[in-house]
Amino acid sequence: MAELVNVAVDAMGGDNAPVQVVKGAVDAVNADKRVKVFLVGREPVLQEELRQYTFDASRLEVVHAGEVIDTGEPPVMAIRKKKDSSIVKGMYLVKESTCDAFVSAGSTGAVLVGGQVIVGRIKGVERPPLAPVIPNINGVSLLLDCGANVDARPGQLVQFAKMGSIYMEHVIGVKNPKVGLVNIGVEEEKGNALTKETYPMLQACPEIHFIGNVEARDIPFGVADVLVCEAFAGNIVLKMLEGVSDALVKKIKGGMMENLRSKIGAMLVKPALKRTLKGFSTEEYGGAPLLGLNGLVVKTHGSSKAVEIKNSILQCIAFKEQNINEKIKEQIVLGD
Amino acid sequence: MAELVNVAVDAMGGDNAPVQVVKGAVDAVNADKRVKVFLVGREPVLQEELRQYTFDASRLEVVHAGEVIDTGEPPVMAIRKKKDSSIVKGMYLVKESTCDAFVSAGSTGAVLVGGQVIVGRIKGVERPPLAPVIPNINGVSLLLDCGANVDARPGQLVQFAKMGSIYMEHVIGVKNPKVGLVNIGVEEEKGNALTKETYPMLQACPEIHFIGNVEARDIPFGVADVLVCEAFAGNIVLKMLEGVSDALVKKIKGGMMENLRSKIGAMLVKPALKRTLKGFSTEEYGGAPLLGLNGLVVKTHGSSKAVEIKNSILQCIAFKEQNINEKIKEQIVLGD
Repeated sequence: MAELVNVAVDAMGGDNAPVQVVKGAVDAVNADKRVKVFLVGREPVLQEELRQYTFDASRLEVVHAGEVIDTGEPPVMAIRKKKDSSIVKGMYLVKESTCDAFVSAGSTGAVLVGGQVIVGRIKGVERPPLAPVIPNINGVSLLLDCGANVDARPGQLVQFAKMGSIYMEHVIGVKNPKVGLVNIGVEEEKGNALTKETYPMLQACPEIHFIGNVEARDIPFGVADVLVCEAFAGNIVLKMLEGVSDALVKKIKGGMMENLRSKIGAMLVKPALKRTLKGFSTEEYGGAPLLGLNGLVVKTHGSSKAVEIKNSILQCIAFKEQNINEKIKEQIVLGD
Repeated sequence: MAELVNVAVDAMGGDNAPVQVVKGAVDAVNADKRVKVFLVGREPVLQEELRQYTFDASRLEVVHAGEVIDTGEPPVMAIRKKKDSSIVKGMYLVKESTCDAFVSAGSTGAVLVGGQVIVGRIKGVERPPLAPVIPNINGVSLLLDCGANVDARPGQLVQFAKMGSIYMEHVIGVKNPKVGLVNIGVEEEKGNALTKETYPMLQACPEIHFIGNVEARDIPFGVADVLVCEAFAGNIVLKMLEGVSDALVKKIKGGMMENLRSKIGAMLVKPALKRTLKGFSTEEYGGAPLLGLNGLVVKTHGSSKAVEIKNSILQCIAFKEQNINEKIKEQIVLGD
């Protein structure tokens, strides 16, 4: 039998913890024999929760952590002080090589800080980008960086492009992924100081398939598989995507309830519409990896339900089996 | 009778010129007796086009311009070389005080450059922002800057906030408009170097109603009336709004055509949906003003039809009658 993929899971993180996290962990263990989950959190609560499920107990272990880091806490302080929190303990399982990966739906800030401070960067990686998969009209793209460290340098954006291409190809399965630089125009000379300096560096990069600048207008149409930008811009792209989708769906639902005729129409159109909108979602792709660390750290939405938790755990299999970090090391160390 | 509001209109700019531009100009003249339009472009073509309409000829004049600036042309060069273009001639009508305003659906770059170089900035205004009105779930917000000059300084963002507030209150009609700083988190300490430095300056500004940082996620829900950011971020907000709306509407239309049941539903729901989506559009508000110039320059969408042209012309009335530029001068000169 091949080696197990050991995944630590923050059982206390997110709006639906621990109920949905525990369910997602059980579902993952039952879905794939290659996975072993270490559920990190308050042991009595977790054992009680686990009692209702059937699963292979040799592949689901509870690791006690008495503290919880709240989303409102200043991340640096929380990581430093709460040594017995589920995030800190889960991160240490990765650092000490007990686990290959750590999955959390908890505080983004704490996960970003913990990833860098506890798990640590791969030698040569200047800044580990948070890389969510975002939906487009034909599939998905990887958007990086969406982390907390803004004002990146051109060389860091080049590293994002390399790491993003490796992840997109070997974990998401897009061959020779197209890399686009998020910008305010498609011409090479467009943009701010950062994009102008980054463009020729990406162009000179043999390891990636750079297609040039990408305007935000074209992102939802799937013009590129890997979208490179610094985190301030990435955050706006990600949050506008979420906000506009939610606002528009709300508006459309309201419009459908306008009168009797539209209500009957809405009833008839609902199942097809539900399928369509499901296609404009990313829950099946799992969470956002924090790339370039000595191990894998995955941040899933705070609102994650069992299905996202399950898929976030399962994505760790491809990450390990495809030796993503070895590939990153080769390209970052050789390429730089 | 009150003084006429004289508006120069670029009859050759945009995808639907001159047909839709001429129609929009005629509609504006017929809609409001306070307006006189100067249609700038190839006289024979325009006279031919005008022949089909009835209007008060004393309030619609054709000004001949033999050249056209294409959207693909480098703007600075185009403005310098094409002295007989509709954009350059229209701008000069404002500079020489023949007209109060200039409206164009042509090259954004040329309009931005021409506005600064020909019409010129109000003394004290460091950078004239392009300020489109964007839809939100409850109404509209003003987003500035969306121009071509990125990497703005904090003091410039403060000027954007002041000018945007004046425009929103006196032209769009929102009393005491809420000003938000576009950022990646709501806490004061969040963001990049620019937003961190700008935040306390906006807070210390008695002329505006500053509500703090605004996350992109909340923009489509109308959390602020005036959204302040530098142009790179503004461009991403604007273009994501357009792109996600278009992609989602396309996706939903596709979903509705999935099967017979959904097709019947779509037929029933269509009129209500159309009204709803019309509410998520800004054509009735006219184009985006370039604020802080010695006169008004309005850039409308390249795809503008007659209705947007008409409304872009009519918005110039409030701009003049409310003495927007006097108000800007007072706040910029006194405030700085």
